[in-house]
Amino acid sequence: MAAEGETSSESLVLSGMHDHYGGVIVHINDNDPMDPATFLSLLTSSIAHWKLQGKKGVWIKLPIERVNLVEVAVKEGFWYHHAEPMYLMLVYWIPQSPHTLPSNATHRVGIGAFVLNPNTRQVLAVQEKSGVLQGTGVWKFPTGVVDEGEDICVAAVREVKEETGIDSEFVEVLAFRQSHKSFFEKSDLFFVCMMRPLSFDIQKQEHEIEAAQWIPFDEYAAQPFVQNNELLKYISDICKTKIDGQYSGFSPVLASSFYDQQASYVYLNNSSTAPKRDGGV
Amino acid sequence: MAAEGETSSESLVLSGMHDHYGGVIVHINDNDPMDPATFLSLLTSSIAHWKLQGKKGVWIKLPIERVNLVEVAVKEGFWYHHAEPMYLMLVYWIPQSPHTLPSNATHRVGIGAFVLNPNTRQVLAVQEKSGVLQGTGVWKFPTGVVDEGEDICVAAVREVKEETGIDSEFVEVLAFRQSHKSFFEKSDLFFVCMMRPLSFDIQKQEHEIEAAQWIPFDEYAAQPFVQNNELLKYISDICKTKIDGQYSGFSPVLASSFYDQQASYVYLNNSSTAPKRDGGV
Repeated sequence: MAAEGETSSESLVLSGMHDHYGGVIVHINDNDPMDPATFLSLLTSSIAHWKLQGKKGVWIKLPIERVNLVEVAVKEGFWYHHAEPMYLMLVYWIPQSPHTLPSNATHRVGIGAFVLNPNTRQVLAVQEKSGVLQGTGVWKFPTGVVDEGEDICVAAVREVKEETGIDSEFVEVLAFRQSHKSFFEKSDLFFVCMMRPLSFDIQKQEHEIEAAQWIPFDEYAAQPFVQNNELLKYISDICKTKIDGQYSGFSPVLASSFYDQQASYVYLNNSSTAPKRDGGV
Repeated sequence: MAAEGETSSESLVLSGMHDHYGGVIVHINDNDPMDPATFLSLLTSSIAHWKLQGKKGVWIKLPIERVNLVEVAVKEGFWYHHAEPMYLMLVYWIPQSPHTLPSNATHRVGIGAFVLNPNTRQVLAVQEKSGVLQGTGVWKFPTGVVDEGEDICVAAVREVKEETGIDSEFVEVLAFRQSHKSFFEKSDLFFVCMMRPLSFDIQKQEHEIEAAQWIPFDEYAAQPFVQNNELLKYISDICKTKIDGQYSGFSPVLASSFYDQQASYVYLNNSSTAPKRDGGV
């Protein structure tokens, strides 16, 4: 089949966007019914066309409604790149050389919030309704998962609000941990965030939280669960040093980059010994 | 079809592992050919069986060789959770309540390596053969992507070695940046890592690197590309403050956790003002 034209829906070539790396990105419309035979015909003519154009990588985003086309693409040499609940991203590499396609996301990101009332030296603590600590009476920091596209400093404020009803302000990242195989083969980055409370009346989330309370920091730290857990003992020691004014974490500053369309947060040690910035270029 | 037995390959129920959250994890064998009709029959009887058992989430890992079974699963109510080149992970939620399945990985992780020769105040710099800086003569730090399951401090040593042939030792994370939509909808965490060189004879990687050289740090920092880029200017200022001995980043310590089978790295400010640790529980 000849490969000609690329503009109308009647053409013999799938329409796609072209990226800066010699790639073609095709979004199959979930409202556009297509039978596997038609798709196979379009796919083979499109690949021939893109090959003549010197294209390298081909990306096809198939909505889950078009699951009937997955097998056709795989049989033509496509493989899985990544998937989200509503779509599957397939890739194909035209050249004979090994592919240089970017890898998939590898990490989930979580936060733990150290919300300190500096006047009372109390920390905001919760007991969870489910999970391994259910029913143990252990007090822990509010924790949660950073959503796709969400800033760490925004996620920490959101999670504290959701779990306890407390408004808070992000201060800095005190430490972070990287762990592996936390979820199938994926890795995990967990950021311990220092927060300044802006309100004090707790309204706990009913679904996940068994109890939420301001408790003396020393009482939190003295729990056997903290003392006997190497990681939590480190974090607790850092928090204590921070309370005593002798610890500097990383605080966020907005910076734009040559590579990006918009500014993003850089987390750095902004204490007295760090470089002074005038706030922008 | 009745759902009975779960032990032999002749049984009417797919065999799976049971997790601690009321879930069942089924790995379909890529050497075990199965036609869609057989799979459908097994799947419906299995779900009925698991429902009686009070199970909640059902995970099915389908190797790409079994792509012929994807459509059957989706038509039965499964959706995509994540995918890697060789498999697709499908999920299903049995209860009527909203699902509480964990989210997919959201971030890619990268490193940039600040390799400083403290005796000469020279920094290891490279020019890349491809990408947006190709042919511009811009000197930059070696950079790279952290592999799945790889520690940030290990990835930095590996990337420096791969790109320049230089052996180095990880010192600390000086700063990190979180950016969004860096790759389709996924986010990106980029860690700037201070490295101590252990060798000095450069052997550049031919495929990706146009040039690699020790250059005076001030020459690196003075480049318009650095000075006019807010992000790189921040990083450059941090590096300069570090050279002058007035900056503390986060250094890695190994810590085990209640939740993990093995120790993982916690990155924290371990400078003189940080808590002193005796190295373990």
